[in-house]
Amino acid sequence: MYPARSQLQIDAPRLQRDFNELSEIGKVGKNGVNRPALSPAHLAARLWLRDTISQAGLEFQQDGAGNHSARLKCGPPGARSLLLGSHLDSVPSGGRFDGALGVLAGLEVLRTIQEAGLKLPLNLEMVDFTDEEGTLVSFLGSFALAGKLERAHLEHPRGTPEALQVGLQRAGLTVDGLLRTKRDPGTLAGYLELHVEQGPTLEQAAANIGVVTDIAGITFYSVTFLGYASHAGTTPMATRRDASLGASAFILALRDLVLQQFPDCYANVGNARFKPGFFNIVPDRVELSVEFRAPELLQFERLETEVLNLIEASARRFDLDFESQRLGQRAPEAMDARFQAAIHQAAQGLGLQDIPVVSRAGHDAQVMAQVCPAGMIFVPSAHGISHSPDEYTPWSDCVNGANVLLHSTLRIMDLFA
Amino acid sequence: MYPARSQLQIDAPRLQRDFNELSEIGKVGKNGVNRPALSPAHLAARLWLRDTISQAGLEFQQDGAGNHSARLKCGPPGARSLLLGSHLDSVPSGGRFDGALGVLAGLEVLRTIQEAGLKLPLNLEMVDFTDEEGTLVSFLGSFALAGKLERAHLEHPRGTPEALQVGLQRAGLTVDGLLRTKRDPGTLAGYLELHVEQGPTLEQAAANIGVVTDIAGITFYSVTFLGYASHAGTTPMATRRDASLGASAFILALRDLVLQQFPDCYANVGNARFKPGFFNIVPDRVELSVEFRAPELLQFERLETEVLNLIEASARRFDLDFESQRLGQRAPEAMDARFQAAIHQAAQGLGLQDIPVVSRAGHDAQVMAQVCPAGMIFVPSAHGISHSPDEYTPWSDCVNGANVLLHSTLRIMDLFA
Repeated sequence: MYPARSQLQIDAPRLQRDFNELSEIGKVGKNGVNRPALSPAHLAARLWLRDTISQAGLEFQQDGAGNHSARLKCGPPGARSLLLGSHLDSVPSGGRFDGALGVLAGLEVLRTIQEAGLKLPLNLEMVDFTDEEGTLVSFLGSFALAGKLERAHLEHPRGTPEALQVGLQRAGLTVDGLLRTKRDPGTLAGYLELHVEQGPTLEQAAANIGVVTDIAGITFYSVTFLGYASHAGTTPMATRRDASLGASAFILALRDLVLQQFPDCYANVGNARFKPGFFNIVPDRVELSVEFRAPELLQFERLETEVLNLIEASARRFDLDFESQRLGQRAPEAMDARFQAAIHQAAQGLGLQDIPVVSRAGHDAQVMAQVCPAGMIFVPSAHGISHSPDEYTPWSDCVNGANVLLHSTLRIMDLFA
Repeated sequence: MYPARSQLQIDAPRLQRDFNELSEIGKVGKNGVNRPALSPAHLAARLWLRDTISQAGLEFQQDGAGNHSARLKCGPPGARSLLLGSHLDSVPSGGRFDGALGVLAGLEVLRTIQEAGLKLPLNLEMVDFTDEEGTLVSFLGSFALAGKLERAHLEHPRGTPEALQVGLQRAGLTVDGLLRTKRDPGTLAGYLELHVEQGPTLEQAAANIGVVTDIAGITFYSVTFLGYASHAGTTPMATRRDASLGASAFILALRDLVLQQFPDCYANVGNARFKPGFFNIVPDRVELSVEFRAPELLQFERLETEVLNLIEASARRFDLDFESQRLGQRAPEAMDARFQAAIHQAAQGLGLQDIPVVSRAGHDAQVMAQVCPAGMIFVPSAHGISHSPDEYTPWSDCVNGANVLLHSTLRIMDLFA
């Protein structure tokens, strides 16, 4: 054990200055930020991070996926690295805390350990992953770093292929560069991430810290109902092949399915595009952005089967055709048991109340868990609100989270001593 | 009666050449055209029309709303004009016949009468109205010519204000010019329009010609359901305020309402815009483009009341707020009884089978009927298909329609002799 180290604290005012500066970049309204991956605002935030890393005297590094790293050589020559990561991109019109807190706390942990002059068994690296939120591809940076990125991901992105191309060009990235990016897993000792919970569990339990046990699996589909375009003033209602009817029936039935048969699961239809999209034409094409999540594998697979059945039934009910394309899938992942224990002990050592939680949101930790031990620390989200400008975490909880990240890091070091 | 005139026929091969040339402008696929109002393709079609008018030795005129006219001074000095009109704009990816047939047949009637050297009690004018289909404002040209255009129509267009501005600039038109456009009603003797039926009635009755008795009223609304944007992975399904649920319930219930309680009426939800419109965000805003139609005034008003009730009920069911904005309304209009008789007699004189029909589609004749006697002639639409590239009218029916337009014109002249 390291008695001096047990008293170590991150520099809370410095972390808050960073947080306030970063919150101004891509700000929308009073409290929101709009920094979709590789948008001008996101690139401005990354430039700010690069400067902040340099000012801290840490080594900056960017890989072929645009992931930004700060590196601290606190380990012996040839030591592996423990990565402390998260992301600076946001959903369109999202909140200030999601992703940003984890990146800034990771940087703050590196600065604190650097200033304390600690020699540790591993090197440390803060990593800001590209496109965690998936406005372009989803987990683009972590997939690339983990060596799991495939050309198909880039050819069928969640956003449009055009948006991906524009974003890559804007950031000076290339498809070939992305596909060549892979960190040697032999250099990775583990991955640790601090994040806001984005749900109400911690607040309801009056807990300070969540020790993530599992991250729910997520599947996303593009689902299209296909009918026949005709004049809305002259085509009898009963004989129309109106794609909006199948889409509407599916949206309502999907909710009932999950509420009634999959109470631990979630589903969402986040977008719909009507074609031709005009007042007086019966829509012949409605394309839906559909996702669903399950905390464990059996439910995950059963839910997908039921969703596909529902698409077909909704189309048949209104004499429609349909197409469904799975755009991506990430299976549920368990967090490393020793990392969970380290986080729990760190929280206890700081006198904080911690509970085990399942993450229903996806995280880069899910991808990293495929190549190294991974762990996640949650802090409360007021009213469970997330992906909204109203997202909020009290500042004291942010500081607690950063200190738990610091002491989890130190305890994980013991595993490698 | 004019015995020589009763034998007069339009020049069918010339009309067909015009039709084939025009069908190439803005062509999509094998049989469709895409000429939304004031789009480059629409402006190209208008330029073609202008040239064709000039080549025919007719007087060309454009007013402040961009309406294109061909004028034939076949009446005595100071005579009023009978207008033969329709439109060259199409819905996005529409058919070749809708609007175009009426414009070309009107032009052909002028050429035929000019070549026959007829002296008549009225002057003749073919008019191509701007934006009949309403990709921008709807009935923009006829509203302006009839002196019914108000600034509010331009400030709350059916399309976006930006699209309207771009279109006007492209065509060299201005808002002030539009609002100043008004034809002195004292110069208008009447309005006559040939159009494809866009519905199945004529085909089912095996009739050649429809004599329009009434044009259904139409109302269009922007309807917005408002919820709360939140993370789709962490917000429990039961507590979401998901705007897509209210919108979907409304779409399905609107269909049931019309089918069950308003069998003579039609409704359509042609477009939906989800905001923020992303896989993992519960949509807080879904904006629908809604229209409904009724053939007579009492139903028209009752239907609007019921639709508004349905919007409110759909929002309440899912704990949502809503906004509804009426973007436009045109009451049902009856066609002039003497014009109906003239069309019927013209069809009979040509040995064609005609029946009275209600137009469920809107037409510029509806606007013109507010300032002068108006009449409409329908020809069959195969399978009733319209607003689709599959729209089709056999060429012999097109020729029949043009000849009925010619002889209706001559018979209407008798009313003014």
